[in-house]
Amino acid sequence: MTTKLFVGVEGGGSCSKGVLVNNGGIVLATAQTTGTNHWNLGFPETAKRILGLVDELLTAAGLKGSSVAAIGLGLSGAETPNCWMNIASALYGLRPTLILENKKAQVYSDTIAALETATGQGGVVLISGTGSNCRLKEGPGGTNYTCGGWGHEMGDEGGAYWIAHRALKTLFDHDDNLKPSEHNLDYVRENMKAYFHVESNFDMLPHLYSKFNKSFFARFTMKIADGAGEGDSLCRSLFRDAGRELGRHVLAVCGKASNMPKELTIVCVGSVWKSWNHLSEGFLEVTNSLLSKFEEVKLVELKSDAAIGAAVAGARDTGYKLPIDYSEHVKILWTTGNK
Amino acid sequence: MTTKLFVGVEGGGSCSKGVLVNNGGIVLATAQTTGTNHWNLGFPETAKRILGLVDELLTAAGLKGSSVAAIGLGLSGAETPNCWMNIASALYGLRPTLILENKKAQVYSDTIAALETATGQGGVVLISGTGSNCRLKEGPGGTNYTCGGWGHEMGDEGGAYWIAHRALKTLFDHDDNLKPSEHNLDYVRENMKAYFHVESNFDMLPHLYSKFNKSFFARFTMKIADGAGEGDSLCRSLFRDAGRELGRHVLAVCGKASNMPKELTIVCVGSVWKSWNHLSEGFLEVTNSLLSKFEEVKLVELKSDAAIGAAVAGARDTGYKLPIDYSEHVKILWTTGNK
Repeated sequence: MTTKLFVGVEGGGSCSKGVLVNNGGIVLATAQTTGTNHWNLGFPETAKRILGLVDELLTAAGLKGSSVAAIGLGLSGAETPNCWMNIASALYGLRPTLILENKKAQVYSDTIAALETATGQGGVVLISGTGSNCRLKEGPGGTNYTCGGWGHEMGDEGGAYWIAHRALKTLFDHDDNLKPSEHNLDYVRENMKAYFHVESNFDMLPHLYSKFNKSFFARFTMKIADGAGEGDSLCRSLFRDAGRELGRHVLAVCGKASNMPKELTIVCVGSVWKSWNHLSEGFLEVTNSLLSKFEEVKLVELKSDAAIGAAVAGARDTGYKLPIDYSEHVKILWTTGNK
Repeated sequence: MTTKLFVGVEGGGSCSKGVLVNNGGIVLATAQTTGTNHWNLGFPETAKRILGLVDELLTAAGLKGSSVAAIGLGLSGAETPNCWMNIASALYGLRPTLILENKKAQVYSDTIAALETATGQGGVVLISGTGSNCRLKEGPGGTNYTCGGWGHEMGDEGGAYWIAHRALKTLFDHDDNLKPSEHNLDYVRENMKAYFHVESNFDMLPHLYSKFNKSFFARFTMKIADGAGEGDSLCRSLFRDAGRELGRHVLAVCGKASNMPKELTIVCVGSVWKSWNHLSEGFLEVTNSLLSKFEEVKLVELKSDAAIGAAVAGARDTGYKLPIDYSEHVKILWTTGNK
């Protein structure tokens, strides 16, 4: 059997990663480039950057100019069939001979790439980074169900921005006498002053208007995590609530699905999961009755880039099966051990 | 007694209004200019624009180059003593001879100017425009208490953006299976599609990210108001909830105050108050027990620019009393008629 080449791409808003593997599942090259979110770039530029990444992979493997058997793209912002078609067409237009037999690239959302890196059996991806997002895939070729992913203006419950916002909202509402808090607010107040370089709530106005910076705001959650670690009751309750919100996302997508596996894998993506010890109480409280229905439930984090999962999915959906040892790519965060 | 001149300015984010009155309370000139919010402009430019407005008023009255007895500035974004001092100092620096006896301008927030246009006895200003904000002033020279005014990132409950956002959030959470709604969503869904020119929730992503426009988003509330008028249950509940939120702002500031008048005037500012018939149920439900403690409660809207109130306050706090018939400047929205 001739060696065949497969490309996978994990595309983010500011950084994208690519992998070139052969039909034996051996990684021949990895590479990275800047963002490939079509909402930021438009379809032509997105396709151009992806092609650049593919060329870099082939060159690095000493295979410059080769065609590949399949390409799987797991791209942030690629949520609809219309998006997928536009990206695949733009890439095809740039180099029609890139994929053997003139086949087009397989395009997925980045959440699918993460899921496919952890399991080939379907499951749930639950993102809690700056924002939050949840997707359930019923299995190979199965239906997808989503919940969230709308950005901080419309949701992102349980993400870092949401936690930071809620910390300050608790403080502001208390000081306004709009909703007095049951918690001692000293820790959050002092850390707000230090982190945002302000002396009062009024001084926060620029941070809420002209100087508003979502990522900077979201990173305040690291201070909340520290506070939770030190036992601050408000910080602990914020993470407990975030855990509940993330749990509700899992309930939402599982409630939509009709074909669930006996064993559920939940792939946890994003830096908020570093605080699983503070999230877990709320998450498990909300999901308890659901999770007990499965023979086994595993919450896992990825150890590898999700580009490998994109390659595997792209290969499969083009008619090839790449051997992959999923256990190599994950570490267990929590498991029911019901099995 | 020599004629003395008094200036009042109502400063907004995009439009500011000025009035020149004499010690008999007679309006000698009015004028307007662009925004005078120091968060947008900085103090020097804010002062420069205000001076330009004052010169325009004096010129229009044939009094070019005259000094005035007092200036009262009611400016959006002017919330702290530090702001007031900076603005007054910047204006003084530009023309030290503008105010007789070298006195500096009196600076207030725009909410104070609105209140002073409706009553000289203190009361509550409750803004529900794009955002929301509430302030209680205990009376002439009395203490101020605020609630809200933090912008849509941190609050603005009961404002137009909040209502529009909540309408779509209800729809998104229902479709996500995150929080199924008890209401029929057809009206909001069809109007979202038409107003934002989208076919699905996914198509809203640009409106939530790159194309986000807070004012445009907020104006969707006019469609919600239409729906409430047509009896749509979700639209009605959104305004009822907005009324509750606005009522809670009144409870918050009244709960902070120690010296309340026997008769309470609540000055309602902003276009959401056009839907008072839909707000009233929630507002009165929340405030009922508080309002019954007053001999009389009046919810009023301004018929005049708040520049006149700024002039009256500025005069009073400089040691002059301008005669003003408050009833000329307001229309009653609702009253207990307890008196």
